[in-house]
Amino acid sequence: MPTRHRRAALRSVLSDQGLDALIVSHAANRYYLSHFELHDPQCNESAGWIVVTAQGRDWLLTDPRYTEAAKQVWPAEDLFVYTGKRNTSVSGMLRDLGLETIGFEARSLDVETFQELSRDLNLRPTTNLVENLRLSKDTQEIECLRQSCKLNHFVFESVEAILQPGRTEAWLSWQIEKLFRENGATELAFATIAAVGPNAALPHAIPGETPITEQCPVLIDTGGRKMQYCSDQTRTFWVGQTPSQQFLQTRERVQEAQRKAIEAIAPGMPVKDLYTVAKETFRAHGQEDYFTHALGHGIGLETHEAPSLSPYSEHLLQPGMVITIEPGLYYREWGGVRWEHMVLVTDNGAEVL
Amino acid sequence: MPTRHRRAALRSVLSDQGLDALIVSHAANRYYLSHFELHDPQCNESAGWIVVTAQGRDWLLTDPRYTEAAKQVWPAEDLFVYTGKRNTSVSGMLRDLGLETIGFEARSLDVETFQELSRDLNLRPTTNLVENLRLSKDTQEIECLRQSCKLNHFVFESVEAILQPGRTEAWLSWQIEKLFRENGATELAFATIAAVGPNAALPHAIPGETPITEQCPVLIDTGGRKMQYCSDQTRTFWVGQTPSQQFLQTRERVQEAQRKAIEAIAPGMPVKDLYTVAKETFRAHGQEDYFTHALGHGIGLETHEAPSLSPYSEHLLQPGMVITIEPGLYYREWGGVRWEHMVLVTDNGAEVL
Repeated sequence: MPTRHRRAALRSVLSDQGLDALIVSHAANRYYLSHFELHDPQCNESAGWIVVTAQGRDWLLTDPRYTEAAKQVWPAEDLFVYTGKRNTSVSGMLRDLGLETIGFEARSLDVETFQELSRDLNLRPTTNLVENLRLSKDTQEIECLRQSCKLNHFVFESVEAILQPGRTEAWLSWQIEKLFRENGATELAFATIAAVGPNAALPHAIPGETPITEQCPVLIDTGGRKMQYCSDQTRTFWVGQTPSQQFLQTRERVQEAQRKAIEAIAPGMPVKDLYTVAKETFRAHGQEDYFTHALGHGIGLETHEAPSLSPYSEHLLQPGMVITIEPGLYYREWGGVRWEHMVLVTDNGAEVL
Repeated sequence: MPTRHRRAALRSVLSDQGLDALIVSHAANRYYLSHFELHDPQCNESAGWIVVTAQGRDWLLTDPRYTEAAKQVWPAEDLFVYTGKRNTSVSGMLRDLGLETIGFEARSLDVETFQELSRDLNLRPTTNLVENLRLSKDTQEIECLRQSCKLNHFVFESVEAILQPGRTEAWLSWQIEKLFRENGATELAFATIAAVGPNAALPHAIPGETPITEQCPVLIDTGGRKMQYCSDQTRTFWVGQTPSQQFLQTRERVQEAQRKAIEAIAPGMPVKDLYTVAKETFRAHGQEDYFTHALGHGIGLETHEAPSLSPYSEHLLQPGMVITIEPGLYYREWGGVRWEHMVLVTDNGAEVL
């Protein structure tokens, strides 16, 4: 969908909310509305903002480093390049536009910037205005996610062959990164988890010098960014010919929970009910305490985006959502199993990507 | 320096400011004070906060994903693991500590979090309290920066051999990334710029499919993270046997400006005067309009940190600062030259790393 249609959709939201404009500072939202710069140089250094106005003229605000890049995606006459003190410069510019009430993204704007802009402008906090538009992916986004996930499948097919005793987690995660990067990914979507044995029980395992042994579980959670969209899948392998009974049983239970959750997917269903399906499946085996995280999350321009598949979710499933379904069971003594697919919510159910 | 000494230094600052505590949410500041998680999972998703209190007991606040990682760097009894709604949970915990006035980092905390915490707590904005401690690097940090920069030199030595006609910018930047990663860097410090010909004139050139030709300039600006610290250097090569006169003359002028700026470095000197030295050197050749960015920036746990070597800087040079000196001249028609060193400010001058 052309970005101007997305801005038009946002414009109707602004009218509903009585806002004359919205300052969009969150990088993925900015990119979604403009195709300008998916990333900021650092989390504390912005590449620029989009200002969508109710009256219909939208602005791209950036600094001189990005002037050329901006012109490739935005009309030069609607570009505002700030120098010196950004907040003073932007305040003056927005004040001159005569906008009365200006929304901003309360989850991404820092307090200092808010306070400086507030001296001259009437600002009102908003949450999720652009995120809500991003919940359901359009046809083009779904195709990008499909391609991105296809590369992820290719990487996992290639990984099995290199799971050899003696190789370390760190070695493995770098091989995985090269597989992504040399086959079409511009970057990883997130830091790969490659966890051997008991490390597989750590939800935040940093790949280290632990080597694969003759018989052990190896949990790999990885994703790349292709065509700007993220992928995210997890598999848990057994290296060696004689997987332990606890591994096999755990894998069966995790895959059962995943299957039941995917089967349950239907538009209109509360997202938190999906979590419950998985939790209850584990409870039937008396293992619910070993499932220690959310069931998954939305994925798109960001690896983690709405909806979160947690018991606290207030979202309903909608066609066009792409979510991960990633139940897991973890045991400090020997490791654990997580299994993760990316799933598209369709008009009448789900499609595993 | 052990992180508890850094927290002690911050504690004196808190007393001076009349603060009972500081919530540290900026990732690099958090790591500096605790060695807990240098990165957040995403810019809009925190791995946790450090709360340093004037009374002397400090806290690490995080979510269950990070419990194990936290225990490796922090006493378990001073760890607070939040679940469910973080801001509600953290508010209650801080209120129970009986802290009267709590500072927060106004440049990193988002407005929503600030507003939610403010319901229960008396919060006061602060800026640069931890950043000011980070301005001068301690012995151990300087050693890390030295090692990180040494790897950067190695990469540039290796790069010259692969600058061959027909190779694209994108290919080149991936080779550079592999050189960093396969020789000790955990990641790139920032996205490499590898710009051929006129692309070298773009301050934000994304490596693309432009190939190196038989005779052309190639600007490479790259850095890796090693021992947690960033490196950042730029060189501009001429590929082919017959560099153009404009290239040679421009390189000479850029190197002259760099040399004069480095020679001028002395503790106590206003940072903005360094910028002036470079600008004036270019002015003597009538080229000052083609130097379009700041002269450099501090570097450490982050690629871009204080001080910025811009005409707006209010910092004074201090021994222990590590800064980049990276003058450049850019010409839309044929490209440009930038030359960048990392420089340690010493007690009586400067040392190029």
